[in-house]
Amino acid sequence: MAIPLPRCLYTEKGASMSSPPCPSSSPAIPLSQEDLKKIAAHKAVDYVKSGMVIGLGTGSTAQHAVARIAELLNQGELTNIIGIPTSKQTLDQAVALGIPLSDLDDHPTVDVAIDGADEVDTELNLIKGRGGSLLREKMVEASAKKFIVIVDESKLVRGLGSSGHALPVEVVPFCAKNTARKLERLFDGCKAEIRVCRQRNGEPFVTDNANYIVNLFFEKGIGNLEAASERILGVEGVIEHGMFLGMATTVVVAGKSGVTFLDK
Amino acid sequence: MAIPLPRCLYTEKGASMSSPPCPSSSPAIPLSQEDLKKIAAHKAVDYVKSGMVIGLGTGSTAQHAVARIAELLNQGELTNIIGIPTSKQTLDQAVALGIPLSDLDDHPTVDVAIDGADEVDTELNLIKGRGGSLLREKMVEASAKKFIVIVDESKLVRGLGSSGHALPVEVVPFCAKNTARKLERLFDGCKAEIRVCRQRNGEPFVTDNANYIVNLFFEKGIGNLEAASERILGVEGVIEHGMFLGMATTVVVAGKSGVTFLDK
Repeated sequence: MAIPLPRCLYTEKGASMSSPPCPSSSPAIPLSQEDLKKIAAHKAVDYVKSGMVIGLGTGSTAQHAVARIAELLNQGELTNIIGIPTSKQTLDQAVALGIPLSDLDDHPTVDVAIDGADEVDTELNLIKGRGGSLLREKMVEASAKKFIVIVDESKLVRGLGSSGHALPVEVVPFCAKNTARKLERLFDGCKAEIRVCRQRNGEPFVTDNANYIVNLFFEKGIGNLEAASERILGVEGVIEHGMFLGMATTVVVAGKSGVTFLDK
Repeated sequence: MAIPLPRCLYTEKGASMSSPPCPSSSPAIPLSQEDLKKIAAHKAVDYVKSGMVIGLGTGSTAQHAVARIAELLNQGELTNIIGIPTSKQTLDQAVALGIPLSDLDDHPTVDVAIDGADEVDTELNLIKGRGGSLLREKMVEASAKKFIVIVDESKLVRGLGSSGHALPVEVVPFCAKNTARKLERLFDGCKAEIRVCRQRNGEPFVTDNANYIVNLFFEKGIGNLEAASERILGVEGVIEHGMFLGMATTVVVAGKSGVTFLDK
């Protein structure tokens, strides 16, 4: 669902990684979604400078950024970096790649955080967490001076929750079915489902924090996002939701025609 | 800190349990705080009728109510009761006493919930959770048609947070120190401390939901309670706080001069 881009700072036509994928003199090779994710991730890492504390996002796009940071560290182009991982998965990747790590208790201020998103609206509000790491992502990214979001153009939407995909909500396991029912009743035309894990015979998916995820599906959209946020957080048993409102400072969008930077 | 009572429905002078503690013809035997808790608990159980789903509170006062419900069940004066415990501790007590139990997933509507409180203000707003069970208590009691609070008169305060004791906040263990710092910064003159467990060498206290508790101490009071609630719930890593606003339907106060019923 590609949407006309808002507030475009600038677009780099034919943006690429190490080698241009589409030289004008040869037949065009279509960029895959994975290529686009990688392009956006590499552009985001341009914001990282030596000496910074970096929030390391989670998911298929963010892992390209983590790999790129490690590459620049190994090349000596970046030094004195401290990474703050947003999930156990990212922690494992960063440890394997040799990135020095810490946490918010010891480094409460993050210079730059880089992460993917599931949806980006025209105001740069996000839905995140379909990978299940929304709580730690939000904790780290709310502590960041700059939060750079990296997406391919398929993630741009007119309004959050309108893509037919879920808004994830992290809840305590205690009486989670009842919490899901309460969440469903907050909104007209909302369906709530506890996320299950196919690898575990349909048992509930368990987050890094040993909680469950309730997926909310909106027939009519979420409506006023700030009001929806307060109502969701007000439900007993809810820990956090996947709307990241007013947090992104820059969104790097990789599309087939180039890279676009959306800025606040 | 005894405070003049608001909106008093009625007071039973010389209220007692099975035998009056102060017959006029003999020297008065002072009632202990434990006596007062028991008197309030027994009065609250008068709201319980056969066939009801009952929220079973947690703590030194609530356990008198749980014991009384079991006593009435054993005497055949109550039948067909289902209890919804608000903690593992209360679950253990109720199982030992033979009270049939369920949870909110199977019984989402609670007819009457009975629980103690740490502070009660003149609007019947509460602080609860100094025993560490605030989350499950709030989940169960928010689902109750009637929420009967039982306290001795020492729990009545002019304004929540003014007693010098803590407002407890349940938080995820991940980067809890940082969450505590963020909570502290929300309010002027607020101090935040992660609750520790003396029996575990000063390790953090762990709730039934495997989370931590941050205790907030207010030098200048909490201020606007609804606004404070929203600000606390908006901090990433916070699960629930111990303010129970607008939830109590009746507060049963046992004092040395009798039992007072405060009603909405």
